[in-house]
Amino acid sequence: MNDININKFKITDSVQLESLPTSLQNKPEKDELKHLLKETRKKLADWQDKLYAHNRYAVLVCLQGMDTAGKDSLVREVFKGFNSRGVVVHSFKTPTSRELKHDFLWRHYCALPEKGKFGVFNRTHYENVLVTKVHPTYILNERLPGITSVNDIDQNFWNKRYEEIRNFEKHISRNGIIVFKFFLNISKEEQRQRLLRRLRKPSKNWKFSPGDLEERKLWDKYRSCYEEAINNTAGEDLPWYVIPADSKHAARYLVAKVMQEKLFKYQEVQEPNLSPGILKNLDDYRKQLEKE
Amino acid sequence: MNDININKFKITDSVQLESLPTSLQNKPEKDELKHLLKETRKKLADWQDKLYAHNRYAVLVCLQGMDTAGKDSLVREVFKGFNSRGVVVHSFKTPTSRELKHDFLWRHYCALPEKGKFGVFNRTHYENVLVTKVHPTYILNERLPGITSVNDIDQNFWNKRYEEIRNFEKHISRNGIIVFKFFLNISKEEQRQRLLRRLRKPSKNWKFSPGDLEERKLWDKYRSCYEEAINNTAGEDLPWYVIPADSKHAARYLVAKVMQEKLFKYQEVQEPNLSPGILKNLDDYRKQLEKE
Repeated sequence: MNDININKFKITDSVQLESLPTSLQNKPEKDELKHLLKETRKKLADWQDKLYAHNRYAVLVCLQGMDTAGKDSLVREVFKGFNSRGVVVHSFKTPTSRELKHDFLWRHYCALPEKGKFGVFNRTHYENVLVTKVHPTYILNERLPGITSVNDIDQNFWNKRYEEIRNFEKHISRNGIIVFKFFLNISKEEQRQRLLRRLRKPSKNWKFSPGDLEERKLWDKYRSCYEEAINNTAGEDLPWYVIPADSKHAARYLVAKVMQEKLFKYQEVQEPNLSPGILKNLDDYRKQLEKE
Repeated sequence: MNDININKFKITDSVQLESLPTSLQNKPEKDELKHLLKETRKKLADWQDKLYAHNRYAVLVCLQGMDTAGKDSLVREVFKGFNSRGVVVHSFKTPTSRELKHDFLWRHYCALPEKGKFGVFNRTHYENVLVTKVHPTYILNERLPGITSVNDIDQNFWNKRYEEIRNFEKHISRNGIIVFKFFLNISKEEQRQRLLRRLRKPSKNWKFSPGDLEERKLWDKYRSCYEEAINNTAGEDLPWYVIPADSKHAARYLVAKVMQEKLFKYQEVQEPNLSPGILKNLDDYRKQLEKE
């Protein structure tokens, strides 16, 4: 499992979601997956220190998935051991009235990570072509010129959004943000089980809302919106990773592994060297302090 | 003058700055210009109320010009009489250390006006292809991957910035921001006179800095960067207006006039109608209050 080929999950072109697995073949035991995750996230946490010291790149981790796909717990487990100073998680919910006064990318743009840091978007700018495509009346809240009824929203409208998302991601990645896009791919049956767990286990009850069942009825519609969004925004430079997520342990490890493999290719990300002028006098500085 | 054809100043394609006037022919007297500005800004202020009530569009006014071109006083005079609630002016100076932790468009994106409001950028995102092109060492402060010396900054670098600026403006204008781009075009001799005035008049001294004379030496370089920036970002949808600005009174009127003519074409920008349900009961509501 340690030498798993993560390129299997990489989407750079069009794709049919139905053809992609929601669970791994020959999946290792839970304990092995936990062990693998632990090793990988330790490497990531070390690399985080270099990223901070190097101070030229940032990392943006975009997490999407159907309800119950495991986004929250994945954030908790993958970034455990990171220096909190350098990780900022944004969970994007229904836009606030202030956010609705701006274009759909604005709140995401303002929340981008600073150089040297990891930013995690738990639900992302893609919701603007997912939940709003399934529920086009939500678009009306954006008060866009020329869009006063759902009949004004045509395929051209969505195509422009895909283009704007592509341009946004191209711009930030050119300017030093390393972007990951993960879709946590669960089966409809696995969602049923997870929702049942929320209902059966009192400590999980709070995560349930009756709306979850209404959204579940729109499963196929959501899946087709995901497929269209991925097909319109995946490329060699900005691929999607469709991660089999029926096992949370496998999904967490795979996400960490994808990041580690890509980030370790940035070999220039290292602690900077001291200038020769300072370096050659380090002994003097040391002595100065010792004599005090 | 009232029927001046403002399209004379509109640039939608490539242009040679040298061929464009810095002063108007047959310029009216100062008093007439002040009167014309007063009338025009009253119309704009009325329209501002509609913009706010309509709440679907915003307006972004981008002001560029060489030192002493009259940007500050233009903001003061053109927006006099506006409701301050609906105008937000951002004067972009040297980027702060926080701003330098993000891509060059980030601080401008976050400062975009809300729906229903005017935003004024006094110096704009264009400084990223102007002052930084004249002084490429400033780019090094951005700590971009792969750019560790000025030798790493080639024409391709600037072409990408122009593309990113075009995409940024296309995105915001598609999503409801009406964008104006003004270059206040003064002559080198007029700048000399204005700098002399700052030196001779004690109350103006504070606006002078010895650096102004150093920048003035780079006049030709700045002009060629302006020309290249305008040529790469002017289009039918997002034109530049090159405003003759040797007369401040003329420049202020022309800027107001350009805005008024374009904004008045947005005929849908009106106070919204009350819903028929409320409208037909207005008399009842009135009587209810009168009886109290």
